[in-house]
Amino acid sequence: MTSYSQIIAHQRDTEALGKIMERLGWDQETMMPEGAANQRGAEMAALEGVLHARRTDPRLGEWLADAKAPDAMGARALELIARSYRRNIKVPADLAQKLAQVTSTAQGVWAAARASDDVAAFLPTLSQVIALRREEAACLAAGGDLYDALIDDYEPDTRAADLAAMFAAMRPRLLALRAAVLAAPAPTPLTGHFPREGQLALSRKMAEVFGYDFTRGRIDLAVHPFSSGGGDDSRITTRVAEADPFNCLYSTIHELGHSCYELAIDPAYNFTPLGRGVSMGVHESQSRIYENQIGRSAAFCDYLFGAMRDQFGPMNLKTPRDFARAVNRVHAGFIRTESDEVQYNLHVMMRFDLERALISGDLAPRDLEGAWNDRFAADFGVAVPRPSLGMLQDVHWSAGLFGYFPTYSLGNVYAGCLNAALRRDLPDLDGHLARGDVAPATGWLRERVQVHGGLRPARETIQNACGVAPSELPLLDYLEAKFKDLYDL
Amino acid sequence: MTSYSQIIAHQRDTEALGKIMERLGWDQETMMPEGAANQRGAEMAALEGVLHARRTDPRLGEWLADAKAPDAMGARALELIARSYRRNIKVPADLAQKLAQVTSTAQGVWAAARASDDVAAFLPTLSQVIALRREEAACLAAGGDLYDALIDDYEPDTRAADLAAMFAAMRPRLLALRAAVLAAPAPTPLTGHFPREGQLALSRKMAEVFGYDFTRGRIDLAVHPFSSGGGDDSRITTRVAEADPFNCLYSTIHELGHSCYELAIDPAYNFTPLGRGVSMGVHESQSRIYENQIGRSAAFCDYLFGAMRDQFGPMNLKTPRDFARAVNRVHAGFIRTESDEVQYNLHVMMRFDLERALISGDLAPRDLEGAWNDRFAADFGVAVPRPSLGMLQDVHWSAGLFGYFPTYSLGNVYAGCLNAALRRDLPDLDGHLARGDVAPATGWLRERVQVHGGLRPARETIQNACGVAPSELPLLDYLEAKFKDLYDL
Repeated sequence: MTSYSQIIAHQRDTEALGKIMERLGWDQETMMPEGAANQRGAEMAALEGVLHARRTDPRLGEWLADAKAPDAMGARALELIARSYRRNIKVPADLAQKLAQVTSTAQGVWAAARASDDVAAFLPTLSQVIALRREEAACLAAGGDLYDALIDDYEPDTRAADLAAMFAAMRPRLLALRAAVLAAPAPTPLTGHFPREGQLALSRKMAEVFGYDFTRGRIDLAVHPFSSGGGDDSRITTRVAEADPFNCLYSTIHELGHSCYELAIDPAYNFTPLGRGVSMGVHESQSRIYENQIGRSAAFCDYLFGAMRDQFGPMNLKTPRDFARAVNRVHAGFIRTESDEVQYNLHVMMRFDLERALISGDLAPRDLEGAWNDRFAADFGVAVPRPSLGMLQDVHWSAGLFGYFPTYSLGNVYAGCLNAALRRDLPDLDGHLARGDVAPATGWLRERVQVHGGLRPARETIQNACGVAPSELPLLDYLEAKFKDLYDL
Repeated sequence: MTSYSQIIAHQRDTEALGKIMERLGWDQETMMPEGAANQRGAEMAALEGVLHARRTDPRLGEWLADAKAPDAMGARALELIARSYRRNIKVPADLAQKLAQVTSTAQGVWAAARASDDVAAFLPTLSQVIALRREEAACLAAGGDLYDALIDDYEPDTRAADLAAMFAAMRPRLLALRAAVLAAPAPTPLTGHFPREGQLALSRKMAEVFGYDFTRGRIDLAVHPFSSGGGDDSRITTRVAEADPFNCLYSTIHELGHSCYELAIDPAYNFTPLGRGVSMGVHESQSRIYENQIGRSAAFCDYLFGAMRDQFGPMNLKTPRDFARAVNRVHAGFIRTESDEVQYNLHVMMRFDLERALISGDLAPRDLEGAWNDRFAADFGVAVPRPSLGMLQDVHWSAGLFGYFPTYSLGNVYAGCLNAALRRDLPDLDGHLARGDVAPATGWLRERVQVHGGLRPARETIQNACGVAPSELPLLDYLEAKFKDLYDL
């Protein structure tokens, strides 16, 4: 065997074991009996140990030193494997293990602290997580920027300074749009009782509408919606609130975007690092464009208005336009995940600035609550009434996910780029969407983005799909046009 | 770290990874989308590779050479780990891999052959599986009996000659009982339509009655009922035939026996080789005593008669005794899994003799069908009409499971021993069973058998529970007494 084929064979099993890890995570959130939690922790730790040993196997280093790729796909695979290898050998095994241990218990501490609105109960754990991630970042950065080193795990080749510049360009236009929208008459919200079975039936219908392949996936209930797995097995979860069918419906469409991406990747890439979504930002671009630019478009709302009425009978909203206004309702609120297209990125920017300061050391964990509340008041104009609506609302930091938040906004920006290109290429798209026919849009995304998996770096993936370099401008133009229309601004 | 603690730490992760393998198998049969089958095969093969490498890790050999156990539990753990290590290093890796590959595809070939009643389509594959298992047995036996070497995987310390002597002692009494029962007037079978939801509700009720811990398990539907996993996560499956509620009910109670055993094992043994049922025979003794000596007893049938009537309304059977006769109905039939307590062991003995001859080489695969049909006619008095009711009925041989069948009868024999001791210790047990109170019986089994897991070898486990050495006599006495009463012989 050549060094190249040794690497590919080694990676094949590593990828297979990684898929098992995802499946265990899915089982944990959907099927696992509650009493099995500790045992599952030990199982996953054992598998993580195997994965870590494989990813840092010294033979990989030797093989990589003289491997010759036979083609472009092979060259990209080698590049991604080498990147992972170099990243993983920089972190001492005991630090990696400590981080895994601490973050796994930190999530329980965070959940309890959030439930009792008790920042003090979370601070020691948060400080420990931050200290360990800073230590890890120092290993990875080798003198460079610590936060950049962390972003790299989620969005390779992306620098905090570039993200900061992008956010600075977005911020004034988003704040202005937010102010204008909130000053306008508020749309009537959807009210009523929407039985669980009907919501789940409509979710399944959306899965069919968006082309989800049920022979390679399934939908289950979980506390938090997520997508899990790839290749020939990508599953999603959803949740139901009987007073708010949009929660179930749009989180389903969002997760469909993630899973459809994974399922559409060229099967030739399966069991290689090309066989997964290329970055968190590109992944989020797919879930967001399914959810927002397609699913929350006025045209698709025309169709959905009818589908909802068919499923649940007459609603308090009597016209498709009123329905679209309710779907896209912008409202003052504290919680990122319940936010809307206009305000969402403001939530992200705030977390980006705060976590960057936490990692650089400019902000001490004990000062986070004050910094959060000051910033929230400045950006959103209201005081945070309690920490569960403030700095305790997100799980991410307890899980050690520093550098992850900005990928949500990057996903929105990429979705904006893709939407502009999609509508340039398919000028009659709204006609299709109004009939519930999303196939032209999902087909375009499949061919332009999804099928390529990790073949190209993230920005290049978007540029290749759109024909122009990614920028925040299409997203901002889209948001202003959409909300000016919906709010008669 | 001492050699002993190195071994225990190594084994802990091996056990954890083994639990993951079981969970993947469960997912495959219950939740996995059909299109994921090939991918799952690759995932399980990768994990099997990891497990094989761990079980044959040369460091294990070094550690074992000078490990000192601190206590009896540690000594038994070392013994079981050493046994597994010595077994696995005897088989060349390429042979183990070939066997895994061939048996994984052989099951599909067998299923297709059974569906089309085509023995010829299965013979080449069967021959290959037998040849590979013989090759493996030759590695393991080191000059000893090939079939003994195979039994050892399922029932350690058990020799075919001893099983043959036991079967020879059982056979005439079973044949005589069978003849007497079939000559007596046949009981009226249960007839009617028993809706799926009601059967599943009654299954869950049985799980509660038998003390299944739903915080550490769950019940799902699958094509074949099975139990999966241990420690704090042991799940069962069942199936529903709306014309035959006993299928669902008794396969549920059977699998509950397996899972309750696993869940009852001393938690201190979890992640060691003591933390699993000690042998297939002892495992089957738990499922069989739950299903038969408890679940099919006349006393429990009193209770179940009422529970069935509560669930489904009046039945064609009007008295608890008629109901118990229907539950225990002995009928001419070709299929082992649909058999009854009287005839079941005759099915097993036949397979034992045939597979022993296949492994020794005395019987060529091409002569198996004739040998099967001759033996069936001799033992059961009827001609096999087609191979799906004959030699193609069981999955076992396609899966390479030679040496497994006799553990079913050993389980029945052990269940007979345990039942005799249980009724000696709890003379008023029937009064409890008639009220649906199985706790005295399951509590006795838990304390006497289940909690000990793999602490003692199989026969010693049963002897320790009963106070006397295992023998086939209690089972035979029990069967004769039970069926003489039910059939008014």
